[in-house]
Amino acid sequence: MLTIAETAAWLGARDNYLILTHRRPDGDTVGCAGALAQGLREYGKIAYIQYNPEITPRYLRFVEGYQAPAGYTPEHIVIVDTASGDLFPKSSEEYTDSVSLCIDHHPSNTLYAKYTCLDGAYSSCGEIIYEILIALSGGISDKSAGQLYAAVSTDTGCFVFANTTSNTLRVASLLINAGAPHREINKLLFRTKTRNRIKIEGALYSGLEFYFDGAVAISTITKEMMESAGANEDDVDEIAAIPGSVEGVNAGITIREMTSPNDCKVSVRTSPTVDAHAICKLFGGGGHAMAAGFTLNKSVPEVKEELIETLRDFFPNA
Amino acid sequence: MLTIAETAAWLGARDNYLILTHRRPDGDTVGCAGALAQGLREYGKIAYIQYNPEITPRYLRFVEGYQAPAGYTPEHIVIVDTASGDLFPKSSEEYTDSVSLCIDHHPSNTLYAKYTCLDGAYSSCGEIIYEILIALSGGISDKSAGQLYAAVSTDTGCFVFANTTSNTLRVASLLINAGAPHREINKLLFRTKTRNRIKIEGALYSGLEFYFDGAVAISTITKEMMESAGANEDDVDEIAAIPGSVEGVNAGITIREMTSPNDCKVSVRTSPTVDAHAICKLFGGGGHAMAAGFTLNKSVPEVKEELIETLRDFFPNA
Repeated sequence: MLTIAETAAWLGARDNYLILTHRRPDGDTVGCAGALAQGLREYGKIAYIQYNPEITPRYLRFVEGYQAPAGYTPEHIVIVDTASGDLFPKSSEEYTDSVSLCIDHHPSNTLYAKYTCLDGAYSSCGEIIYEILIALSGGISDKSAGQLYAAVSTDTGCFVFANTTSNTLRVASLLINAGAPHREINKLLFRTKTRNRIKIEGALYSGLEFYFDGAVAISTITKEMMESAGANEDDVDEIAAIPGSVEGVNAGITIREMTSPNDCKVSVRTSPTVDAHAICKLFGGGGHAMAAGFTLNKSVPEVKEELIETLRDFFPNA
Repeated sequence: MLTIAETAAWLGARDNYLILTHRRPDGDTVGCAGALAQGLREYGKIAYIQYNPEITPRYLRFVEGYQAPAGYTPEHIVIVDTASGDLFPKSSEEYTDSVSLCIDHHPSNTLYAKYTCLDGAYSSCGEIIYEILIALSGGISDKSAGQLYAAVSTDTGCFVFANTTSNTLRVASLLINAGAPHREINKLLFRTKTRNRIKIEGALYSGLEFYFDGAVAISTITKEMMESAGANEDDVDEIAAIPGSVEGVNAGITIREMTSPNDCKVSVRTSPTVDAHAICKLFGGGGHAMAAGFTLNKSVPEVKEELIETLRDFFPNA
């Protein structure tokens, strides 16, 4: 395991980098890759990103300019924000066993890289990259700052999620001082919804069902709802958080009908008093204490019925 | 006008304070009053709040303990976050002409108090109170920190609004270091919606109408929608921001049917390319360049028709 200072020294002593991101790329992995490539270039290095426009959401394509040209042969593969080999996108799979350096904040990191810089106390990988760039060159440019602001704000939901710390806000403040266009980024990442998203949310809000004296809220997203809203996966990003955001709800459940007829993906988000993992384990799934999930090869009404029956044990007084 | 240092000195040299908030109290005015009362008490002063549970939203009643006892005779009236005399709540109107000190961040402050500490560059009054308490006693307790965190986060929508600055995030970071329970406050203020709010949002999302190639979104809140959702004013707080949050929308308009039959309140939120004030001025209203409003004594369909007709001049190419 490398410290932040050791990681900066490692990067400063080598050259010709290719930086990878994880699959289904989000603002943290894309922003970290962009900021690291930018910072290394400013330090005199050659650095490119394994950038794949097909899998990158439109609002994260600000790293286009760092795309590796055809025929580029890197000396060192660096990956950011990626906990394990099975999270590599298809276009990076050839590098699964040859990553020199992994920089990450997921405690679940499998230490698959030759060298790893990991600290699970950070809300985002962006906070770690910030410290590394400061250790490397003593400062940070407006370009890197903007990319890191996108990284840090994404993983904390713009500083509202429970993983936000005093250090997150300190770093974000310094990134704005360094020239991060935080207003534009906030507007793009947090204050803009697609029309399809609006349609799906409208249908979801209107169809919310409450059980156990309002302690449980269940929302259902059917194939038909997705089709009629013209919605894709980006449009339903983080939508499982909605039922749990209703006042008085301790377990917010989202039942998502998948493509095959009897195939449902269930997401369970809970408050600290209810164990989401324990609920999902009973259905062969699992996860964390406050966010877990499972899949069931049954129809939406069947899944709902079984869930409510099972939840009786978790809400005995309702 | 007093500087922050002068304001701290002024407060340190006197005693027996009553602190007022503005009407329709929000997290900034309530949090500032609570933090100031707490900080003054820790400094050895007697300080109470003119607290009115009837007009204070449930989630802001954390200042209950500072309520002035019956018969308390203050020597000095201090008010926070209140730009003019007509923003006093009924229960404080007796003090309109006898405020000794006003601490505020609204550039529109009418300087109605004997002394005023005003800086329009701050996103929230909470940031100013923070500096004053540091100037007064060199530090800040966890109790004051929590109240100020509620203040600062409220006025910036948890750091996502365009008024958020590097200093906002710096102060928020220091407040967390001082012990502000930011996770609990974020959950309460930003991650919890009432069931009535969910109903209203569902109906609003489903009923959004788009004009001028999607550049204009119009939402309508009728009396019937409010009644059927059982919604009150708290439930529709900041709801006018929704139509403008849709991708591609440059003017988000909310038509709210008020209590009398032909009486509509219209809110216009725009992106920098469209002048909300200019639009509203044509209907006898006004406001800011990106947020303005007007009222019209007409039915909802009539208001909508007139608006669309008027907007043709603002969107000539659509």
